[in-house]
Amino acid sequence: MSSRELVETCLSRIADPVGEGTRTFIRVWEKQARRAAQAQDDLLRAGYASSLLAGIPVSIKDLFDVEGEVTLAGTRALDDCPPAAADAPIVKRLKAAGAVLVGRTNMTQFAFSAVGINPCFGTPGNPWDRDRIPGGSSSGAAVSVADGMAIAAIGSDTVGSIRVPAALCGVVGFKPTQGAVSREGAVPLSTTLDTVGPLARTVHDCALVHAAIAGEIQTMPKGASVSGLRLAVPTDVVLEGLDADVSQTFQRACTMMSSAGAALRELPTGVFSDIRSENLNATIQSVEALAWHRDLLARRRPDYDPNVRKRVERGAQFSAVDYVRALGRRTELMAKFDAVTAPFDALILPTVSIIAPSMDECRRDEDSIRAQLIRNPSLFNLLDRPSISIPMHRPGEPPTGLTIVGERYEDCRLLAIASAVEELFISRSPDLLWR
Amino acid sequence: MSSRELVETCLSRIADPVGEGTRTFIRVWEKQARRAAQAQDDLLRAGYASSLLAGIPVSIKDLFDVEGEVTLAGTRALDDCPPAAADAPIVKRLKAAGAVLVGRTNMTQFAFSAVGINPCFGTPGNPWDRDRIPGGSSSGAAVSVADGMAIAAIGSDTVGSIRVPAALCGVVGFKPTQGAVSREGAVPLSTTLDTVGPLARTVHDCALVHAAIAGEIQTMPKGASVSGLRLAVPTDVVLEGLDADVSQTFQRACTMMSSAGAALRELPTGVFSDIRSENLNATIQSVEALAWHRDLLARRRPDYDPNVRKRVERGAQFSAVDYVRALGRRTELMAKFDAVTAPFDALILPTVSIIAPSMDECRRDEDSIRAQLIRNPSLFNLLDRPSISIPMHRPGEPPTGLTIVGERYEDCRLLAIASAVEELFISRSPDLLWR
Repeated sequence: MSSRELVETCLSRIADPVGEGTRTFIRVWEKQARRAAQAQDDLLRAGYASSLLAGIPVSIKDLFDVEGEVTLAGTRALDDCPPAAADAPIVKRLKAAGAVLVGRTNMTQFAFSAVGINPCFGTPGNPWDRDRIPGGSSSGAAVSVADGMAIAAIGSDTVGSIRVPAALCGVVGFKPTQGAVSREGAVPLSTTLDTVGPLARTVHDCALVHAAIAGEIQTMPKGASVSGLRLAVPTDVVLEGLDADVSQTFQRACTMMSSAGAALRELPTGVFSDIRSENLNATIQSVEALAWHRDLLARRRPDYDPNVRKRVERGAQFSAVDYVRALGRRTELMAKFDAVTAPFDALILPTVSIIAPSMDECRRDEDSIRAQLIRNPSLFNLLDRPSISIPMHRPGEPPTGLTIVGERYEDCRLLAIASAVEELFISRSPDLLWR
Repeated sequence: MSSRELVETCLSRIADPVGEGTRTFIRVWEKQARRAAQAQDDLLRAGYASSLLAGIPVSIKDLFDVEGEVTLAGTRALDDCPPAAADAPIVKRLKAAGAVLVGRTNMTQFAFSAVGINPCFGTPGNPWDRDRIPGGSSSGAAVSVADGMAIAAIGSDTVGSIRVPAALCGVVGFKPTQGAVSREGAVPLSTTLDTVGPLARTVHDCALVHAAIAGEIQTMPKGASVSGLRLAVPTDVVLEGLDADVSQTFQRACTMMSSAGAALRELPTGVFSDIRSENLNATIQSVEALAWHRDLLARRRPDYDPNVRKRVERGAQFSAVDYVRALGRRTELMAKFDAVTAPFDALILPTVSIIAPSMDECRRDEDSIRAQLIRNPSLFNLLDRPSISIPMHRPGEPPTGLTIVGERYEDCRLLAIASAVEELFISRSPDLLWR
């Protein structure tokens, strides 16, 4: 299939009047996408070697600067800002790798909630059940991939904003080691915890996009196998209160990996409950958010989603000493976690403890749903570990995600492990071919 | 002269009943120093090549861990802590380089004042006039060198704690780029601003000690010359309110450098007054200090020097957002300063705007004297630039220091420039041979 055909398919899905296009994209670049796709096809016909992402339609979260456009981050509160003077480095790299950018995807305002509801630009419905939330904050990113409006999407993840919507929408979402991918030209949420990464239908596609935006040469080391993998199953915190679907699909996934020769071992990490009880994520996130938002809040307070505003303003509760000590505790807990996980190739756990709740339920009590959604993924922003969520459900089941956690800076190795696990899942469930 | 003779001279000066030994050292390691000196002499006689600091007597600020001893940091508030389990990395490196460690030097409690008064362990008198302050917080370090109780001393510098006592006592003091020297095994004051460096009689000796503790191979590049140096003289903030001695010796130093072929140019930096008016140093320093001290203060409050306690407790005034924004402003100002200073090889300015005030005057109003002392040197902790203070007075004059500021990470280059300037000063004033 030519790039032009691929892009036309994506654009027609975006434009489908009964689809989620208008709630998934804040802006669509039809004309440039068609031109770029045609040029990529022409290049290929001219005998030029294909670049990494040549002709592949990719969507960009509304968080990132694109030259000449105002970066809204899902909110009208930024609509009086000047247009971006330059593409964010990741946008430049995608273009250089031959990607065809289809548009800017909708998101939770300022990326500050994993629920995915946006009172200003609407909320794209979950592909499994449109009355349910897509998860966020990279809501449009996940739906753009799940609904075939793009082959891959760029998201950002501070406490789970790539992995939560990936899990709830049934796609793959990869949060790299912090610092692996430039965050320049993106509206920041938490300078300590923010990461940038891809969502796609397969681990392989995520690996290609990650290589492009990280500027890495290697996409995935070949030859990882589930057989012989030493996998830790953390027993503290992350298995609490799993709903029936998540519990059953996680159990089935564990059994499959074990039968395929992986050595699974239960691991009480001894750090997860400290992270939770000391409120480390919320402290760091809200303080750093307020440091950025204070001036804008003074100017455009009424234009904030009240739920988001409340979270940002929580940063004012913390003293400088609380914050410094939270950063210090983070360093200590990272070292402790690194030590207990050293004997393993990876950790496995459910990405989210529940399947996507209904939009109504979330509108009634966004805070407690948000807390449930981010509980597991946020741990690995705090501990700065690359983490990937891959689907562990089968067709007909509500989407659930398996998180695999790798070693810091070993992003490629984690992708290789995840690819082997994904292959196992597909081989045991031939009806997964839809993916 | 053998190491044993050198060490005996140092030990006898420390033990001199009319000297400052008891106020300069918190602990003296006579026995081990003699043994180590003897061993170094034996090695040399056995034909072993001399290591970098072979046989050189060096004093260590009381801030650093030495295996088996309680690190007091100049205060009784730490006397119930367990003895250090290991030498700090810089202590290990000094030993490995052949240095002979003579003892732990007195300091301002917890290193939190540049005045140098210690109500608990006494205050060593300034070598030029014993009724005047030595400067601090590395007070004992400077006096140990000036009085010949050690050839070199290790100090620490957060807002001027190496350079202020060096200037007031008439020795050389070098603050490296932050991160050039390990701060592990040292009681922290400000994790963002703390640095570790040497004091000695000459730039060359400082360069040797710096190379040893930084683990660098190169001590100083050869062949720097004053002729042709492009030197900026900042005109904002740092020249305000110079006393007559400082003003005259600085003017004379500038004239000498200019006559020797250096190109001096006035430079309004445009950043110094922002650093001062936004109170960036004090915000960062007091917040990070309180983050470390909070538990100890709860336990040992009465054992703190009240002046130090007050400064630490000031950290409670700041919100987390104030602190995060102060760090952000620091990054901005560093970039701005780097741009305006790029056309120059170095900056020159008086280290301190006044000569050493009397102890009585300081006891009456420590705060305002402290503010005067740290005004200039603290700028280069905030801007993270290597800075060295070298004497610019002549025998018979009260000690004054010339600060030379280099490029970040170009520590060796700065030492080479400072060595050339020092050589110029000595050549124009033969009676400086006492140094």
